[in-house]
Amino acid sequence: MPDSHSADTESQLLPDSVGLVTPEVAHFDTPLALACGKTLAAYDLVYETYGTLNAERTNAVLVCHALSGHHHAAGYHHPDDRKPGWWDAYIGPGKSVDTNRFFVISLNNLGGCHGSTGPLSHNPDTGRLWGPEFPMVTVSDWVHSQARLADRLGIERFAAVIGGSLGGMQVLQWSIDYPERIASAAVIAATPRLSAQNIAFNEVARQAIRSDPDFHDGWYAEHDTMPKRGLKLARMVGHITYLSADAMGSKFGRDLRSDDLHFGFGVEFQVESYLRYQGDTFSTTFDANTYLLMTKALDYFDPAAEHDAELALARALAPAQCPFLVLSFSSDWRFPPSRSRELVDALIHAGKPVSYANIDSPYGHDAFLLPEPRYEAIFSAFMQRVAPTSDTQADPEESQP
Amino acid sequence: MPDSHSADTESQLLPDSVGLVTPEVAHFDTPLALACGKTLAAYDLVYETYGTLNAERTNAVLVCHALSGHHHAAGYHHPDDRKPGWWDAYIGPGKSVDTNRFFVISLNNLGGCHGSTGPLSHNPDTGRLWGPEFPMVTVSDWVHSQARLADRLGIERFAAVIGGSLGGMQVLQWSIDYPERIASAAVIAATPRLSAQNIAFNEVARQAIRSDPDFHDGWYAEHDTMPKRGLKLARMVGHITYLSADAMGSKFGRDLRSDDLHFGFGVEFQVESYLRYQGDTFSTTFDANTYLLMTKALDYFDPAAEHDAELALARALAPAQCPFLVLSFSSDWRFPPSRSRELVDALIHAGKPVSYANIDSPYGHDAFLLPEPRYEAIFSAFMQRVAPTSDTQADPEESQP
Repeated sequence: MPDSHSADTESQLLPDSVGLVTPEVAHFDTPLALACGKTLAAYDLVYETYGTLNAERTNAVLVCHALSGHHHAAGYHHPDDRKPGWWDAYIGPGKSVDTNRFFVISLNNLGGCHGSTGPLSHNPDTGRLWGPEFPMVTVSDWVHSQARLADRLGIERFAAVIGGSLGGMQVLQWSIDYPERIASAAVIAATPRLSAQNIAFNEVARQAIRSDPDFHDGWYAEHDTMPKRGLKLARMVGHITYLSADAMGSKFGRDLRSDDLHFGFGVEFQVESYLRYQGDTFSTTFDANTYLLMTKALDYFDPAAEHDAELALARALAPAQCPFLVLSFSSDWRFPPSRSRELVDALIHAGKPVSYANIDSPYGHDAFLLPEPRYEAIFSAFMQRVAPTSDTQADPEESQP
Repeated sequence: MPDSHSADTESQLLPDSVGLVTPEVAHFDTPLALACGKTLAAYDLVYETYGTLNAERTNAVLVCHALSGHHHAAGYHHPDDRKPGWWDAYIGPGKSVDTNRFFVISLNNLGGCHGSTGPLSHNPDTGRLWGPEFPMVTVSDWVHSQARLADRLGIERFAAVIGGSLGGMQVLQWSIDYPERIASAAVIAATPRLSAQNIAFNEVARQAIRSDPDFHDGWYAEHDTMPKRGLKLARMVGHITYLSADAMGSKFGRDLRSDDLHFGFGVEFQVESYLRYQGDTFSTTFDANTYLLMTKALDYFDPAAEHDAELALARALAPAQCPFLVLSFSSDWRFPPSRSRELVDALIHAGKPVSYANIDSPYGHDAFLLPEPRYEAIFSAFMQRVAPTSDTQADPEESQP
């Protein structure tokens, strides 16, 4: 709950904020065939835009969101919002994704719980909520739905498609599935496929949700309940993987909540308090069926799988035509720098132009969301080279990092 | 279920196995004051011994167990046991902890669920099971109870106290609390204190158990149930931290259980199947209240806490009088080599004799349980130097690595 609005209102008025934004909804009634074999007859996508589309419609940038992300990437929905969108540090006038130059589109993916068609939407075939019957969606499905949104907005080719983590996987898929529609790609804190350990953590999260008695096989909404215990556990374990051990150590160490140990199962260490709070908050604001779908989309992503073992990833990336920026973060142990280098090697093998930087950061996987001067400088420099410069409001020279 | 007994019977008869062993129980009715402020009026400790105590009672080695361990460290209980005790790779005739030379004692700690007094025992004051009312126990409490067991067996001084992980913490505490009663110390895959990330993983495990509706505030036995879902999740997340990401990768990779993805929430990847199996097995064989107690004992362990910040650990270790062997494993990310080096540095600062080796192993934290030639060679060499050599059955020269 906000205890003071003045500071927030001020930050909304800062010249580098996109300010107040309003989501829009696009309805699609052309059936979408999904990788799982099912078809979505109709669906909505909720999205936001920042900046102005130029007359040639050549300055559009697509932002793809991560596991628990959504369309609200920058700016504020309400004057009393305490926090801006999830990538506000990098999207705005003069920022890395400069809304003086670019028309930025950020959407909530299919299967999401923030306004796009997903488990919380009504299934027209049954009259019930989709719930657990919402079909499994893949990164490829999302990219196809995003391409339709681009069609709707009259965008033939994105100046750039960008994203971190699961968002970065969508960028890769764009470069493979629609090479002619993407002029630049920024793949941040991502991986070309999950490791066994990544899948294992996702499986713990899924088991936590699915074994919660309030899950009711996914029909919890019809039982007027939510599997909060399971979602809380899923978020707690996820959160540990988003932070580096060092960052947790310097943030909390072994600090106690009160002066002494009390030898009980209440909160004793600060890190326990923090994790419980993160889990509790998430468990009342996110949909469990969506969380399950998103983790499966992560697990399934593996563009190299369709190709023979040797150089499979390079072969998978062969269709790509755009230059790539690949960024990793030194302390990210969820998708460590080695996984980004694997991607960079494959891009080089495939003869694609690629810039790579491993950003020194103590913050683990979450670093991709946080302000960091070197990250900002490299991301900005890459985006500065992204065409076009025509029909924009600012001179790009002025906002060089 | 064993599908064939012949192979197992053969391995029990191998000359380097301690063979069939029978646990014993020691009852204590001298009250034990605990760190939490409570007192245990009386208690049992279940233990096993391997080898023969010499006439001077100078060849005893104490083995301390880890989080989910127990007294059954070596040999077999029944001719049809499929697996030997948990540290059988290192305890036996001619092995690193050579039962031809040493009289080895391994016990189940207080609060355990394998026969020593714990939550599954009857509380004489209430007539109920102890359940969640069993007092919180610390590493120091365990060491005091172990010292009483030594008294009972007529052992004034251990030739060595040894242990891995939480077992290694007990070894450290022995060297501090009873310096005159421990002649050598082997601290393997341990840490002088948990990190915030370690505590965070423990907290996820505890929340999983305590939020399971079958937990009933710890009185599940009186409700004729067990919080199996919670224990399963706790074990799954624990298990991920016991293995290295690389070991999981080479063991399972992204291998599928069947030929194709089936786009559902059943088992798709082998690693999911493995984790579910590990979790299911554990959830029917381990006590939830014990698991909670053991994780808290881990969290609380911090001998340096009572000393001023600078060189606090070295000061904590000042009373120690014995030589130390410290071993870590290269891929252990639960208690990484850096934590062992921290301990080694403190021992050096404190002027204690210490040998340290970081064993190259791909198996993560679990490596301390697994056969590995360099680990075996170094551990054996250290134990060979442990006095005494009198009254033993074999010439130590013969079993040099």
